[in-house]
Amino acid sequence: MGLPVVGMVGGGQLSRMTHQASIALGLSLKVLADATHDSAALVANGVTVGEHTSLEDLRAFAAGCEVVTFDHEHVPGGLLEALEEEGLRIAPSSAALRHAQDKIVMRERLAALGIPVPPFTPVATLRDVEGFARHVGWPLVLKSATGGYDGKGVWVVRDAEQAAEVVSFGVRLVAEQLVPLQRELAAVVARSPYGQGAAWPVVETVQSDGICVEVVAPAPGLSEERALEAQTLALRLADELDVVGVLAVELFETPDGLLVNELAMRPHNSAHWTIEGARTSQFEQHLRAVLDYPLGATTPTAPWVVMANLLGGDDGASDTESGDLDRRLHMLFGRDPALKVHLYGKQVKPGRKVGHVTALGDDLELVRRRAQVGAHYLRTGTWL
Amino acid sequence: MGLPVVGMVGGGQLSRMTHQASIALGLSLKVLADATHDSAALVANGVTVGEHTSLEDLRAFAAGCEVVTFDHEHVPGGLLEALEEEGLRIAPSSAALRHAQDKIVMRERLAALGIPVPPFTPVATLRDVEGFARHVGWPLVLKSATGGYDGKGVWVVRDAEQAAEVVSFGVRLVAEQLVPLQRELAAVVARSPYGQGAAWPVVETVQSDGICVEVVAPAPGLSEERALEAQTLALRLADELDVVGVLAVELFETPDGLLVNELAMRPHNSAHWTIEGARTSQFEQHLRAVLDYPLGATTPTAPWVVMANLLGGDDGASDTESGDLDRRLHMLFGRDPALKVHLYGKQVKPGRKVGHVTALGDDLELVRRRAQVGAHYLRTGTWL
Repeated sequence: MGLPVVGMVGGGQLSRMTHQASIALGLSLKVLADATHDSAALVANGVTVGEHTSLEDLRAFAAGCEVVTFDHEHVPGGLLEALEEEGLRIAPSSAALRHAQDKIVMRERLAALGIPVPPFTPVATLRDVEGFARHVGWPLVLKSATGGYDGKGVWVVRDAEQAAEVVSFGVRLVAEQLVPLQRELAAVVARSPYGQGAAWPVVETVQSDGICVEVVAPAPGLSEERALEAQTLALRLADELDVVGVLAVELFETPDGLLVNELAMRPHNSAHWTIEGARTSQFEQHLRAVLDYPLGATTPTAPWVVMANLLGGDDGASDTESGDLDRRLHMLFGRDPALKVHLYGKQVKPGRKVGHVTALGDDLELVRRRAQVGAHYLRTGTWL
Repeated sequence: MGLPVVGMVGGGQLSRMTHQASIALGLSLKVLADATHDSAALVANGVTVGEHTSLEDLRAFAAGCEVVTFDHEHVPGGLLEALEEEGLRIAPSSAALRHAQDKIVMRERLAALGIPVPPFTPVATLRDVEGFARHVGWPLVLKSATGGYDGKGVWVVRDAEQAAEVVSFGVRLVAEQLVPLQRELAAVVARSPYGQGAAWPVVETVQSDGICVEVVAPAPGLSEERALEAQTLALRLADELDVVGVLAVELFETPDGLLVNELAMRPHNSAHWTIEGARTSQFEQHLRAVLDYPLGATTPTAPWVVMANLLGGDDGASDTESGDLDRRLHMLFGRDPALKVHLYGKQVKPGRKVGHVTALGDDLELVRRRAQVGAHYLRTGTWL
């Protein structure tokens, strides 16, 4: 049909759901996966198995695509720069993506832009941490500058002894004040190369052990003023960093206002609710953005939308492999015919995100309960 | 994940969109396609190229699936019976599917059930047609008992001369009164092996040259009583014929009431609007039904939903292949960021369904116009 070819590096659920969205646009996402059993590789037609840390694999993959984008931040920046020098189109660019790959780069850039972030400093030694602790007190947060996700690479340390242990890991670290947060929010936007921006409603994200378990859209009780502030901040960041695609800005809401916690430049867990809950999903929007199509309407489709992640339970692996997931789906669909279930085809491991459910409706408490009941039942086989 | 494998015979857009829906359910539709460039074969992971008229190909395909279903009615009933005798699960069954494959079988069964159909009779000779014309008058309708679709295999004949020509084609024919219809409606339902039924709102379908061009959900101005009558009729038919999966009942609305025109036992053009317009799409519902999962909620997501088919224009092939479709998408997305576009990846031929657009909203006339403008622009490159 003369339509462009989009390649996505990474075969996880983000790639899987982007492929799903690409079908409506007349496309078929090309996926560079680690293995044929990767979540996206199970459902997409154009799958290449290769290493996202190999320039050769990346180059061969990119050669067949008009634009290459990502379902994670783990492709080394140097490789992306090399591809860009060869004239291949990467979205977001290596220069933008650095801010989602390296927390020190991100914190310093945001601070320079005057965007509020928690007090922070790069630390290399225990002495550095102790010096920072004199300003912000214990406990404080140490984060690996690169490579962390879902709570991995983040340590809350209570004293010098705990800090010493983290320093001994030998990774580049940034220290941050443990801010007195009231809750976490996320402002998710998209931006096209043309410069168009579009923002979804600001959401509240609920974490457990550093993993997002629930997203409520819009964030309950958030003033219009504060919501606008968060959206404006995210759109400004997208512009300043020259982001192309989806940008998720994770925020702390504190008594003193909003602080930026993390950035992601790809479809993000905090916007899975948009599949049913917004006129344009983040997956379609990401494709529209990297293709420089005009962006789609971000209007919500219901007053309240709640997404709950389906995390692998301790008993998960054996149960689901033996077909118990199938039985649970029967029971859950019978109980709540309006709940939307998304399964990623991944092998179940404790704490791993293997799917999510979305509930929509007029009554926040009811919608929230339906999502929680659904996710809990699929995980455990028992009703909350 | 221990989830079942669903196979669909046929690689058209219905299969493509069923694959898209299967992804959320943790599945990946297996497709038996005619060719690797078939609409569904471009996007699905598990594609087998084979003949749907070959018992061997069907048997090999079905062997890898827990249940086999269809995106068209063209698999010969005898082959399906053979597969069923071998213990393979076919949904809908060959016995049910006959009523969507053979208009004489369908008409006779419906008449026997007391379900209103246009006056009809099987005809083999011109003399048969002339005999029937003495009851219903000229013009009348001749239909090929099998194999017709999108207006193909349907002839309105004005006199014996025209009838003689159709009879000379040598196909099995049924003659029908040309009923004084006010408009066409469709009642689409789904039914599971367990016997659960679910109905979407009754829609109005608008045809041009025998091809559906527009679907309005719900049918404007339809009384609640008449809508309920149509839904009840469709659910009863699904039960009586033991349908498993989606059943689309095409209806004529006449001054004397509803008459059944055609049946389809698969996802159907008249319910593409459900992708965004209902809590559960017909594609997800078809999968839930053939897997005997409890059916999903059919609640509409907006007061009015209009789907317009994107038919290949006379200039279509060259334009879209040269990338003009890409340019048109840019323009259309810019004009209507809330319009949902679905492209099937098919080569454009005049009159061929190559995609559809869906608009949703509160104001019927506006929604209808947006869908019409979008489809017309993608087809022609000019604004209505």
